[in-house]
Amino acid sequence: MDLKTYFYKQTLDHFNYGPQSYATFKQKYVINFKYWGGANSSSPIFAYLGAESPLADDLQNLGFLSANAPHFKALQVYIEHRYYGKSVPFGTMEEAMKNESTRGYFNSAQAIADYAELLIHIKEKFSAQNSPIIVIGASYGGMLASWFRLKYPHIALGALAASAPILYFDNITPQNGYYSIVTKDFKEASKSCYETIRRSWSEIDKVASKRNGLSILSKKFKTCEHLNSSTELKDYLEEVYSVAAQYNDPPDYPVTVVCRGIDGAPNGTDILGRIFAGIVAYNKKSSCYDTNLYRYPTETNVGWRWQTCSEMVMPIGRGINDTMFPPSPFNLDQFIKDCKSTYGVPPRPHWVTTYYGGHDIKLILRRFGSNIIFSNGLRDPYSSGGVLEDISQSILAVSTVNGSHCLDVLLPDQSDPSWLVEQRNKEVEIIDGWIAKYYADLLV
Amino acid sequence: MDLKTYFYKQTLDHFNYGPQSYATFKQKYVINFKYWGGANSSSPIFAYLGAESPLADDLQNLGFLSANAPHFKALQVYIEHRYYGKSVPFGTMEEAMKNESTRGYFNSAQAIADYAELLIHIKEKFSAQNSPIIVIGASYGGMLASWFRLKYPHIALGALAASAPILYFDNITPQNGYYSIVTKDFKEASKSCYETIRRSWSEIDKVASKRNGLSILSKKFKTCEHLNSSTELKDYLEEVYSVAAQYNDPPDYPVTVVCRGIDGAPNGTDILGRIFAGIVAYNKKSSCYDTNLYRYPTETNVGWRWQTCSEMVMPIGRGINDTMFPPSPFNLDQFIKDCKSTYGVPPRPHWVTTYYGGHDIKLILRRFGSNIIFSNGLRDPYSSGGVLEDISQSILAVSTVNGSHCLDVLLPDQSDPSWLVEQRNKEVEIIDGWIAKYYADLLV
Repeated sequence: MDLKTYFYKQTLDHFNYGPQSYATFKQKYVINFKYWGGANSSSPIFAYLGAESPLADDLQNLGFLSANAPHFKALQVYIEHRYYGKSVPFGTMEEAMKNESTRGYFNSAQAIADYAELLIHIKEKFSAQNSPIIVIGASYGGMLASWFRLKYPHIALGALAASAPILYFDNITPQNGYYSIVTKDFKEASKSCYETIRRSWSEIDKVASKRNGLSILSKKFKTCEHLNSSTELKDYLEEVYSVAAQYNDPPDYPVTVVCRGIDGAPNGTDILGRIFAGIVAYNKKSSCYDTNLYRYPTETNVGWRWQTCSEMVMPIGRGINDTMFPPSPFNLDQFIKDCKSTYGVPPRPHWVTTYYGGHDIKLILRRFGSNIIFSNGLRDPYSSGGVLEDISQSILAVSTVNGSHCLDVLLPDQSDPSWLVEQRNKEVEIIDGWIAKYYADLLV
Repeated sequence: MDLKTYFYKQTLDHFNYGPQSYATFKQKYVINFKYWGGANSSSPIFAYLGAESPLADDLQNLGFLSANAPHFKALQVYIEHRYYGKSVPFGTMEEAMKNESTRGYFNSAQAIADYAELLIHIKEKFSAQNSPIIVIGASYGGMLASWFRLKYPHIALGALAASAPILYFDNITPQNGYYSIVTKDFKEASKSCYETIRRSWSEIDKVASKRNGLSILSKKFKTCEHLNSSTELKDYLEEVYSVAAQYNDPPDYPVTVVCRGIDGAPNGTDILGRIFAGIVAYNKKSSCYDTNLYRYPTETNVGWRWQTCSEMVMPIGRGINDTMFPPSPFNLDQFIKDCKSTYGVPPRPHWVTTYYGGHDIKLILRRFGSNIIFSNGLRDPYSSGGVLEDISQSILAVSTVNGSHCLDVLLPDQSDPSWLVEQRNKEVEIIDGWIAKYYADLLV
């Protein structure tokens, strides 16, 4: 293979000079040299900034890097985010997450400082001082990429921030932004499907309130384990619809799949029967359906829960009748209370906008900063918190009406629709422009 | 008086979510409301970012704010730097500096995060969301001001960074930059004065090596206490010349004063007699001269020593015969060793350039960032590490050939030379432009 794995001795605490902060941990990064034009020609470095998961085994899937490395003659660098995968301080994720002190270093400011230190190290290691670095990230990683360009312009020449909801903090984006788009996606796929879902929640409650209601529901939905509450079922369904909308990718378009199941149930099928038919269509036939599917303590779930309960407080909620879901307003006071009871310390809900900004972003960045692409698919629920309009001549929004979450950074495929191909081409063209300007500046 | 003092409950550690980081300390800030046009007219806020000393009692002396507040209708805010004055965590400076853990939070990244949090608080407190903030700092505080604009553009619209040697890190500026300018200042004031000083060091060594040599020197220089070594005397003289050059302010011009003393000694006065005459001229007549003057453990000395021994590692040194001083090369390895033995932890000499940049600054900031004035007086030894050329249309250098350290931010005086008046006017004009553009943008 062309991938080579390294470990960097990373500083645990970049912002403290006490003895404990001199502790280090091993941070994993992977390099693909295959297409690199080399340091002598100042060929670029594409750095994928890891997010809330271990670095994938199959990095090929991070298509923006692998597909475009030949064109750019780029060195491909993939860096794992602290506290995930093989880059966990204090030995293991369990150990690191166990107590309040060891968890404290797990935040985005430390993570992008890791990237800064490591990218400087990589440039030195390969004598690539003049190679421009483009940072690339998706979702939370996309936020990190855009913030990295803003905070460390001397390290990254530019950033591709895919599906980065950097405006989903404080009150910048309406709370119901996320679920409004999920709702819109379903409504656009099928009005009747949307109506069925909208009416299903009270049906579930009605059945659940019966004697043996939970048994009836468990049987009806073929749950792998007996339901403990109707909330369990409703949360599961909410997740299915959200995930389907978020990853409503071609060629299958999961929202369409779910709705085909719901709408396609035989005449006379009742609401819950239709809902179940949607689940079956989405999951393919199965002997049972696991309503705990989205709750397992994977590294991503464990890590991201902490991150959202400390720093990345995204106020995602729903009001009454403003989506196809039952109301579930985001209540900051309650949220703080819950996090505090789980983790012992309260979150700092306003720190993200204090450190990175977000309010009045057009006013602020119109005359500050450069070289960021905010890419979004407008069917992605997270696009509600994304940057959807150009801010300046080089802080640009590249959106697709039909796109979903992080679609543009995935590996290109023969079957890709033309709007997706165009989005990716546009991104490449913009980055080409940044690099050409950089080379010209380098000669001045 | 028009000054009102406040204390803000500041976060001890902005970059950690462990329980210890939730500790807070009281941070002092002072506001002068007298000339403020108010929130309704979005009148600006001028924020002085404190540096390595307690906030002065006489804030009036920070002339750039007090002199220009009427013109700008500006709110004047003065913020004290953490670990100085009344803004010391852990009770007292002594307590805070006593051990390795309590010292760890004493660094610039935490300090500018304090300013960020506090300025947002002030905007909320006075409902001044639309009031643009201009941050102003001098020397180390000037570095903080320019870095603040770069890191927190959503909080500060612009920065006046007076005499900020942001390039005196790593190997960006030649080690001997500082002492070369001291030397040049003396040479320009008087060739013979410069020659006398240049030749004095070996004279001191010669006398010191005699039997009773230190007694002879102590008497000759009327030292308040008997000299323990010739180094004590040489260090003192070096400081006198450096301070005279750094603060070579009109109308007195201390370098000229010293040289007048040296050159004006009666014919036949030997070298050391002339050097002493320079000291007498500089200090005015005194019964004795305190060679420990610059070594007392003032807050500034204690605090800044730690800051330079942890984060703000400025490699200031001298080679052989490249200045009027004896050689004293900056040896990074030795420096690290010394700091480690003093403080228990080694400095991180490359962190400043990792976090804030500095290398290739023209290449980097040419197309990134905006609204920074780097002002310098070219007779200021620290100007050797300053930004002396315009970087872009709004990252500008405003230098004066005859200026000294931070002169432009002091209170204007009738006797000010025209080049100083012009420098200040130019700064005001530039800031006027930023604010006008901001108001225009606000209406878009």
